[in-house]
Amino acid sequence: MTFQITILGSGSATPTLHSYPSAQLLEIGSDYYLIDCGEGTQYRLLERHFRPGRLKGIFISHLHGDHYFGLFGLLTSLSLGQRTEEMHLVAPPGLNDVLTEIFRQSDTRLSYPLHFQETDASQPGQIFETPHMTVSTLPLQHRIPCTGFLFREKTGERKLIKEKISPEMHFDHFRTLKQGGDVLDEAGNIRFAHEEYTLPPPPPRSYAYCSDTIFRPDLIPFLEGTDCVYHEATFRDEQLERAKKTFHSTARQAASIAREAGVGKLLIGHLSSRYHDPLISLDEARSVFAETYFAEEGKTYEIPFR
Amino acid sequence: MTFQITILGSGSATPTLHSYPSAQLLEIGSDYYLIDCGEGTQYRLLERHFRPGRLKGIFISHLHGDHYFGLFGLLTSLSLGQRTEEMHLVAPPGLNDVLTEIFRQSDTRLSYPLHFQETDASQPGQIFETPHMTVSTLPLQHRIPCTGFLFREKTGERKLIKEKISPEMHFDHFRTLKQGGDVLDEAGNIRFAHEEYTLPPPPPRSYAYCSDTIFRPDLIPFLEGTDCVYHEATFRDEQLERAKKTFHSTARQAASIAREAGVGKLLIGHLSSRYHDPLISLDEARSVFAETYFAEEGKTYEIPFR
Repeated sequence: MTFQITILGSGSATPTLHSYPSAQLLEIGSDYYLIDCGEGTQYRLLERHFRPGRLKGIFISHLHGDHYFGLFGLLTSLSLGQRTEEMHLVAPPGLNDVLTEIFRQSDTRLSYPLHFQETDASQPGQIFETPHMTVSTLPLQHRIPCTGFLFREKTGERKLIKEKISPEMHFDHFRTLKQGGDVLDEAGNIRFAHEEYTLPPPPPRSYAYCSDTIFRPDLIPFLEGTDCVYHEATFRDEQLERAKKTFHSTARQAASIAREAGVGKLLIGHLSSRYHDPLISLDEARSVFAETYFAEEGKTYEIPFR
Repeated sequence: MTFQITILGSGSATPTLHSYPSAQLLEIGSDYYLIDCGEGTQYRLLERHFRPGRLKGIFISHLHGDHYFGLFGLLTSLSLGQRTEEMHLVAPPGLNDVLTEIFRQSDTRLSYPLHFQETDASQPGQIFETPHMTVSTLPLQHRIPCTGFLFREKTGERKLIKEKISPEMHFDHFRTLKQGGDVLDEAGNIRFAHEEYTLPPPPPRSYAYCSDTIFRPDLIPFLEGTDCVYHEATFRDEQLERAKKTFHSTARQAASIAREAGVGKLLIGHLSSRYHDPLISLDEARSVFAETYFAEEGKTYEIPFR
């Protein structure tokens, strides 16, 4: 199954010419979701020739502008485009008040149902489910309520061993075997055993998005064994005090969370605009956790199998 | 005196890859103002290497997103940049409620005073004044309350005739003469007459911004003799009914307003995303009013003397 993220923006709050504010496009199976939606996100999607109408849902971590000021334009454009399919919006409770006020002033009635689901930063837990994945909130700690999101693939079907397929087998048999059942004959005896004809499904993968947060070791158990983690790295160790004061993390702190949680791969982003060379942050993180990469805008990262 | 506008965005509501939503940068004297502020406007300013901190005020015509969804990011960025100077915001009353809600959710206290001045679409009149200009609202008619803005230079100083300057004249004399006074000798007789040493000041220029509006002939007296008018031209005559229904204008209607008001120059913009060739709209307008130009993004238009 496809399970990948595309970085649309990985800049921090101060706008610059070489970065965009936070937004990621998640593709899982054939479904698309947005994670955060900084100003201009709808233009980033257009640039990729991605029709925003394909989005099934949007996850917003917190209500600082660089994480959601692109949402108003996107939701409005979807309505101008006559979307009818329900849109899922998972976000902090206050967003409902903001949207209500904005749509009231513009006399907008959306062409589609907006299903609003409130996150609760004090109660992490599963918040969304589809046939392909579950989504849980992660407890982050920022200046205002903020949650991360853990996207976990559901266990897939077993894999047919092609060499073993015989002409007497039907499509119904394949389905039964892939779902872990045995095919029985009329007398109720096993005709085809799933253990013989199939291999176990690939292990389910997981992706965690940890946007703005102070260094928070109690996040580690939630990230245990995650295949890929995005963690903010606004500052470097030289700005440790500033990181604490503004409720952000350093590159080294992001890496130590990844190492302690035994994750597969770490992506860092949200670097302060004061830093012109992301490689220095990357080096700082890699000195703690080698499998660290910079969340590069425009780039797609497949969630790896372990 | 410098008096010019730079088109930052002249697209309509549906986002496209080849246009940005409405925003114009007005430069008058050494002061800068924004007129409307569509999503991404702060990035357009960055691209032009214009420091948003130089803005003295922002004029918002109405609360449809393509005219103001860039405002939240811009105001927030100015605060991150530690602006202290007051910012003037001239806009429909509802904007105050939207900003209050957004800043409440992000727990933002701006680093600078935001002086909010409400427009009243039913009561056009002077709303803002500086040493260089006056600004009046213009009565537009759209689906929600909407005003245009008329920016009018104040009469400048008389111009010294350089050839007539003699060594016995002082700086104080120049100032008196330029302000239209005569320089007297100790006995009270005219020593230097302003009519002899100076020429009349250039006539004050004016620029009118008429964003979203249905064709509205009663706008004509307000625009009488304006040197440059921007008027929306969302549709073409072939979509006359659609223009009426959506409270927009056609290129021909914009041009007929300009012709009847005897303006100097007409800029058209806000063309529907259905039109891929702005030249066709331009031709339609020019068949009625020859001095029509397309408000081209990135281009600066000096307000011409008549």
